[in-house]
Formats: sequence, C-alpha cells, structure tokens
Amino acid sequence: MSKYVFGVDIGGTTVKLGFFDVEGNLLDKWEIPTRTEEDGSHILPDIAKSIQEKIAEKQVNVSEVAGVGVGAPGPIDSEGVVHKAVNLGWGTFSIKNTLEDILHVPVMAGNDANVAALGEMWKGGGQGSKNLIVVTLGTGVGGGIIVEGKVLTGAIGAGGEIGHIHVEDDEAECCGCGNKGCLEQYASATGITRLAVRKLAESDKESILRGGEISAKTVFDAVKQKDALAIEIAQEFGKYLGDGLSVIAGVVNPETIVIGGGVSKAGEVLMEYIKPHFIKNVFHANRDVKFALATLGNDAGIYGSAKLVLEA
Amino acid sequence: MSKYVFGVDIGGTTVKLGFFDVEGNLLDKWEIPTRTEEDGSHILPDIAKSIQEKIAEKQVNVSEVAGVGVGAPGPIDSEGVVHKAVNLGWGTFSIKNTLEDILHVPVMAGNDANVAALGEMWKGGGQGSKNLIVVTLGTGVGGGIIVEGKVLTGAIGAGGEIGHIHVEDDEAECCGCGNKGCLEQYASATGITRLAVRKLAESDKESILRGGEISAKTVFDAVKQKDALAIEIAQEFGKYLGDGLSVIAGVVNPETIVIGGGVSKAGEVLMEYIKPHFIKNVFHANRDVKFALATLGNDAGIYGSAKLVLEA
Repeated sequence: MSKYVFGVDIGGTTVKLGFFDVEGNLLDKWEIPTRTEEDGSHILPDIAKSIQEKIAEKQVNVSEVAGVGVGAPGPIDSEGVVHKAVNLGWGTFSIKNTLEDILHVPVMAGNDANVAALGEMWKGGGQGSKNLIVVTLGTGVGGGIIVEGKVLTGAIGAGGEIGHIHVEDDEAECCGCGNKGCLEQYASATGITRLAVRKLAESDKESILRGGEISAKTVFDAVKQKDALAIEIAQEFGKYLGDGLSVIAGVVNPETIVIGGGVSKAGEVLMEYIKPHFIKNVFHANRDVKFALATLGNDAGIYGSAKLVLEA
Repeated sequence: MSKYVFGVDIGGTTVKLGFFDVEGNLLDKWEIPTRTEEDGSHILPDIAKSIQEKIAEKQVNVSEVAGVGVGAPGPIDSEGVVHKAVNLGWGTFSIKNTLEDILHVPVMAGNDANVAALGEMWKGGGQGSKNLIVVTLGTGVGGGIIVEGKVLTGAIGAGGEIGHIHVEDDEAECCGCGNKGCLEQYASATGITRLAVRKLAESDKESILRGGEISAKTVFDAVKQKDALAIEIAQEFGKYLGDGLSVIAGVVNPETIVIGGGVSKAGEVLMEYIKPHFIKNVFHANRDVKFALATLGNDAGIYGSAKLVLEA
C-alpha cells in the first residue's frame, strides 16, 4: 500500500527534494546540486541516486512509495516529455520513462511553475479551491492554471505561461522572450524596478527612492511609507497585473487567484493596487474571485510535484 | 448496450434536437419552440416529451440510449446546475436532475458556447485536436475552451467567456455586460458594424460602404473588393481579435483555434487580418497554433451536447 511519495523541484543550480506521506505531510527535505554539464545528462541519475539513498535511510519498502513527481523549468507535456529546457541543457526526451527505468516506481513530470501552482492548491494559499490561477512574481512572471484540480498543461506543456501575455502595445524594450509588452515587463521584480527607474527619470517629484537602491522591495517599502512617487509606480504595476488577471480569469473562471514569488513578500498591500483594476474590467461572473497570497514559498514545487503523482 | 445519444441545444426561441449514433452520425434532427413563459418551466418537460416521442418513433429501446446532452445559454457548472439563464427565464436549479427524473437516462448539461466548442472538436473544424479555443463571432462573441478533450467549465460555469475579456482602455461606450472595452465590442458582428460606422464618420475616404447597409457582411464583401476603408476596419477588427486570441492562447496553449459564428462566413479572408497580430504578440511556444473555420454551423450545439454525454 502506498504510504509515501517524493516531490522533486529541479532548478538551474540546485534540485530540491521532499519526502512526504500521502496525506501531504513533509517528512524530510534536502537539496543536491544541479549538474548541467554534458547536456544535463547527470541530473536525473543524480536525483534517482539521492532518492534511493533516502529510501534506504528511512528503511522504506519501495512498494510503499506511490511514486516520484518532478517539476522542471521548461515545457513538459502531460506524458512527461520535456520539449527543451535550455537552463538544464536538455533537449526533448521523456523524464517519466528515464526515471522510471532507474527507480521502478511511477513517475510524473510537469513544468515547474505549473507544479508549484498545484502545490499551492494542495497545501498552500489556494487550499479548498479546485479552479485556480497561481501567478509567481519573481525575476520573471510564472504561472500555473489549475482546472478542476488538475494542471492545465496545454498542447506542448506551455499552458499557464501568463508572464508572456501581451498587455501593452506601446513598449519599446524587448522582453526576454523577444516580444514587446509582455506582462512580465511590468509585474515581475525586474519589471517593477524598470517601471521605477522610468518613473524617477520622467518625474521631478520628491521621493525617498531617489539616490537609493531601486528594487521591487524598496518600491513597496516606500509605498508603505506613503511615498507619492512609489504609489504611482505601484498603481502602474497594479493596472497591468489587475487587467491581465481579469483576462485570465475571463478565460478560466477560477475560484481563487494566488499571488506568490519574491514580490509577494510585500504582502496584502499588493492587493490594494491589483484588485481595483481587476474588479473594474473582469466579467461579472468573476467579480467574487478570492485573492490569496502564496504560503509555501520555495517548497511549492516539491509539494506540487508530489501531488502530481497522487492526482494521476 | 449504448447505441444512441441525444443532443439538445436550447435557444431563446427554438430548441434544436439531434438523434445520433454513438459514433457521432446525425440520424435525425428537428426543432421545437422554446416556451419561456412561466419562468421557462415548460422548456425541459417539452424537451423530454419530444425525446420520448422520438424514441417511440424510432422504435429504440431506452436501454440503448447512452443519454441526453443539453446546452443552454447561461453559466452551467460541471454538475449540470444552471446559475441563472435570463433569456430562458431560469433561476438556479439542476438541469441534470430535472431531466433525469423524467427520462431515466443519464443527462449532462453545459453552457451552449462551451458545448458548441466540444462539437467542433468532435466533428467540426477542430477535429484531431484535444486542446482548442473556439470563438464564435455572432451578434456577440462567445467562446469555448477545450482542455485535453474536455470543456473548461470553470468554478461556476463561466469558463471560456472570452467575449468579455478587456482589450481596450479607451472605450466610451458600454458593452452589454456593463463593462467598457470588451472583445465583443470589436469582434462581434455588432462590433464590426460599430467600428465601420465610426470609421465612416471619422474619415473622408471614398468607400463603397458609404450610403449602403453597414454590416459585418458588407464590410468583408468590401474588403474582398479591396475597398481601402473596409480594409482599415478589418485591420482594426483583426488587431483586437488577434491580440485577444494571443492572450488566450498564452493561458491555454491550444493546438487549434476554431473561428465560427455568422462573421466566419466571410471565410479565409478573416485569417489575413487576425493572424499577423496573433503571431506578433503570442508567446513563441504558441506560434504554430493552427487556425480553422468552424464547419458545423448551427448544428455545433447538438453535436457538442451529445459528445458531453459520451465524454462523461
């Protein structure tokens, strides 16, 4: 009988691993380095070895392991095939088959942002909802859409790539993806810094931001001190994100929108700037959508990848 | 053994009914009036009676009927509960339970636009794809999102309401939904007419549209005759719809986008105006999404509601 499940979150420099019981209690977590050399060919064998060691250490019988879930940064389809993950040096191959051949337990795989969304549904800010939008405001903007308790993977694993929806026609600078006017250019930590630098250059207004370090954190710290210029920056951020989320909600009709990533550490103040724009432009059936902050932080990926196995 | 299935599409004035074999061959179709008086309380009993008569007429054994699928204009959740359908006089109740109590066969129900999308996936322009966006350009803009072969219903049945995603900040007129700047205001038949009337008033350019009847049809007929002003209108339409679809594709990562409704009768010329904007702004993973015209016309609803039963 299945008692345990492993959740794995592969990042560009470290792999996070979690050992859970099937109720979702995190019994142990640890990290190993991500060896991206030789086209990332060591990554999955390293993970398998680490899991086998943990199984031995915990004196668990392999028959008690429900499986291993894996989240990785790249498009991964519902069959567990990754379609290029440049950060890891990976081309196109089946993560599922590769790991199952070594470990002889069921393996499921998904895009890291999608899997983190599933984690927030299961044990984080989205608990109790089955239809969610999870938006992660970090260096970039990541996202995951959950529909009736399952990740919206899409045709080739690019479902929920909401950082790159087009929200502004009049943008001169390119996004990392090559397009212009992506949500990520305004709502990520980097995007907020960019908005702040622009605003400081355009405006003569006094601001505690002038002369200091400019980051999403310093902007929202200044907002909390009622700095007028910082508030203008937050309003701009809120307009793009609120409008963008209203469109995404129009497509998926969620119960809850969960906001995570480094920027979300600013806390509830974010909602003051996002929600008015969301409410103004969203279709009336979505006006009661709940907003919540993510609660799992960097553990969302290991929770979600474990859940991927249990949901299968 | 199940051999047959019924598909029902409830409209404001008529109910369309289809009798199919389980492979999806349409064996018979007919219509009955939609009696909206007395809070629409006759509608479902009328449908049940009509189906019972058809079963008798065709000398089918009830045990051979897989079930009855129903599409109706309103938010209908995945349990078959309608949450107000104003056009039919309906409040909130279970379509599924009401019809099952009379007919004693399985009943499934869904929003009419979502169900029509499922029909286009099964036997129409989206055949062969499991992840689709279907957009219906009629008096309004309706939509349906199909994820891994199933309708994206959403929390309260408002999934895929893409006519009301916000695409324009600078709109003075209200949409029927009460918001301003909805996709429907630019991409529906009514919206195209509105764009045309505006353009004709603003511009001094000669046009074969001047003095005649203005409709989506006359605009696209003029486009085919290379009328410069009509082309400007089509470009504006294409920008809103292409950009809007690029955002929706960013959320759902479809294989195919199917365009239906009265406006789609203009044919392939529509794609010339939609696709360049779509390609320009869509996330690169979605750049190869196929575009197709809907092929089932007004029968999409009966096909899709039948499929709803077979997918359950």
